[in-house]
Amino acid sequence: MSDMPKSIEIREEGPREGFQIEKDFIPTERKIQFIDALAKTGLKHIQIVSFVDPRRVPNAADAEAVVAGITPQPGVHYTGLWLNDKGFERALATKRLHVTGGLNLSASDSFLKRNQNRTIAEQIASLPVSIAKYKEHKVPVEGGLISAAFGCNFEGDVPPQRVVDLTATMIEIAGANDVPFKRLTLADTMGWATPVAIKRVVGAVRERFPDLTLCLHLHDTRGMGVANAYAGLEMGVRLYDAACAGLGGCPFAGHKGAAGNVCTEDLVFMCNEMGIETGIDLEALIACANLAEEVVGHPLPGSVMKGGSLGRLREKLRAA
Amino acid sequence: MSDMPKSIEIREEGPREGFQIEKDFIPTERKIQFIDALAKTGLKHIQIVSFVDPRRVPNAADAEAVVAGITPQPGVHYTGLWLNDKGFERALATKRLHVTGGLNLSASDSFLKRNQNRTIAEQIASLPVSIAKYKEHKVPVEGGLISAAFGCNFEGDVPPQRVVDLTATMIEIAGANDVPFKRLTLADTMGWATPVAIKRVVGAVRERFPDLTLCLHLHDTRGMGVANAYAGLEMGVRLYDAACAGLGGCPFAGHKGAAGNVCTEDLVFMCNEMGIETGIDLEALIACANLAEEVVGHPLPGSVMKGGSLGRLREKLRAA
Repeated sequence: MSDMPKSIEIREEGPREGFQIEKDFIPTERKIQFIDALAKTGLKHIQIVSFVDPRRVPNAADAEAVVAGITPQPGVHYTGLWLNDKGFERALATKRLHVTGGLNLSASDSFLKRNQNRTIAEQIASLPVSIAKYKEHKVPVEGGLISAAFGCNFEGDVPPQRVVDLTATMIEIAGANDVPFKRLTLADTMGWATPVAIKRVVGAVRERFPDLTLCLHLHDTRGMGVANAYAGLEMGVRLYDAACAGLGGCPFAGHKGAAGNVCTEDLVFMCNEMGIETGIDLEALIACANLAEEVVGHPLPGSVMKGGSLGRLREKLRAA
Repeated sequence: MSDMPKSIEIREEGPREGFQIEKDFIPTERKIQFIDALAKTGLKHIQIVSFVDPRRVPNAADAEAVVAGITPQPGVHYTGLWLNDKGFERALATKRLHVTGGLNLSASDSFLKRNQNRTIAEQIASLPVSIAKYKEHKVPVEGGLISAAFGCNFEGDVPPQRVVDLTATMIEIAGANDVPFKRLTLADTMGWATPVAIKRVVGAVRERFPDLTLCLHLHDTRGMGVANAYAGLEMGVRLYDAACAGLGGCPFAGHKGAAGNVCTEDLVFMCNEMGIETGIDLEALIACANLAEEVVGHPLPGSVMKGGSLGRLREKLRAA
């Protein structure tokens, strides 16, 4: 347990991950209400919208209106997701988002072919183009992300060495193009990871690149989210993507097999109880999770929002 | 990771834990169907009924009929739960159950007072009486259980030293009464444990009693079940209670805050992926979890039953 960090930082993705999969349109003011509530919990990074084609993702149609409607809290970074130049330019045009450049690669050729009709090699070749675009708009590059880093539904297991090699490639390209590469997100996009795999991949990347800051993006598809985050903590990982209430996929609403990111308040609960600082008010976050259920109109998978925090129980017992 | 066991044994409690909380009566033949399916998955220990007052637990009313109706599989131990002499005698009278004697203590005075109107001291004083009863019926004593070993909703945090002391007391009383005490179940009855707490308590008990076989009984009230089991694996714990589909409490059916044991198939999935043998056919177990949802008539919290196993995905990819 010697590597356990004293504090971690959680990057909330609930609004973006959660709303985009809903079939019914969620009113803009409800989205804003949820985001504004999250921003008062102590969360410092909140991904609030995606700039994608509204014909494919109806709940992304009001992205600009959502960004314009929030009440920004000091010190909170609001971010957006984009998948192409048009989306990137839409994000910039809002002038209210924290826009940073990321280099993204997939560890699965099959997934890429299926979803973007290109190969890993083609994706690598596009990175300098992305960097040039970021430079043109004076957007700082902070690092990158490897999706399907632990396995892929269309390709199967991913060897850790491939993740290390892709990381090396990104670092090399960043260096050759004179931008920094300080942070790498390892994304378990399709829920293949287990704690041992987390330790294996994090260990392999860290051994080769000890100065790189690692972030884990964990989907809870097979119920391993919290355990995988714990394995990350044991490896000293200090950055986690998470989604309030486990937003981002609802196994109870016919999205068969889909599941959101690891649940933010469950992760915060675990950290609180283990003496790891998150800077987040758990009770306020639980209130947000309850609001999220109200907004989407169906049960969400988070546990602590149902079981309750222990902090509140301890207070009651002390008062009794 | 050096302490990770090569194999573990899972004790299924889904039928007993799961059916007893349902308000509507589940037909006896449906209970039997589920138990018979579980017994073909490779599970070797299945707790199938509880011999308690049917006025308090309507779904326990047909316990004898369930036991009489199952088709026993060779090598499978079917067990029952009882809370008093009458229940114990009912279990014995079935002549079909694997009946062993257990010494049970609670780590929480407040919980005991509330639920059984007695103190820990009174509970300790009753242990020799229990042992005499087991001896009288020639029922072997195997060990014991400490409930609320990680904390209690009515008492708060439980110091690990109290768990060690209670263990010492049980071992002493077993010795003085000439029965063995080989196995101790640490029960997180109210879902207070986190991975660090698991390591702390297991470590404290193991340090004092290195030869004792430990079992973890983990409730998933706050979403920590799988992570806590992983912490147990890292500590070398080889016995786990679990419930198929996460039966035993359903946050989606108005049992606010209740949650079942850690989900059996999620635990088996994690072990499979980490190279730890369970002797259980995961696909057969997932089929049981789906059957459980059908039998209780509402969604259950298990994840792998919704996300699917990776074994099946890998097979498809190999065949493609």
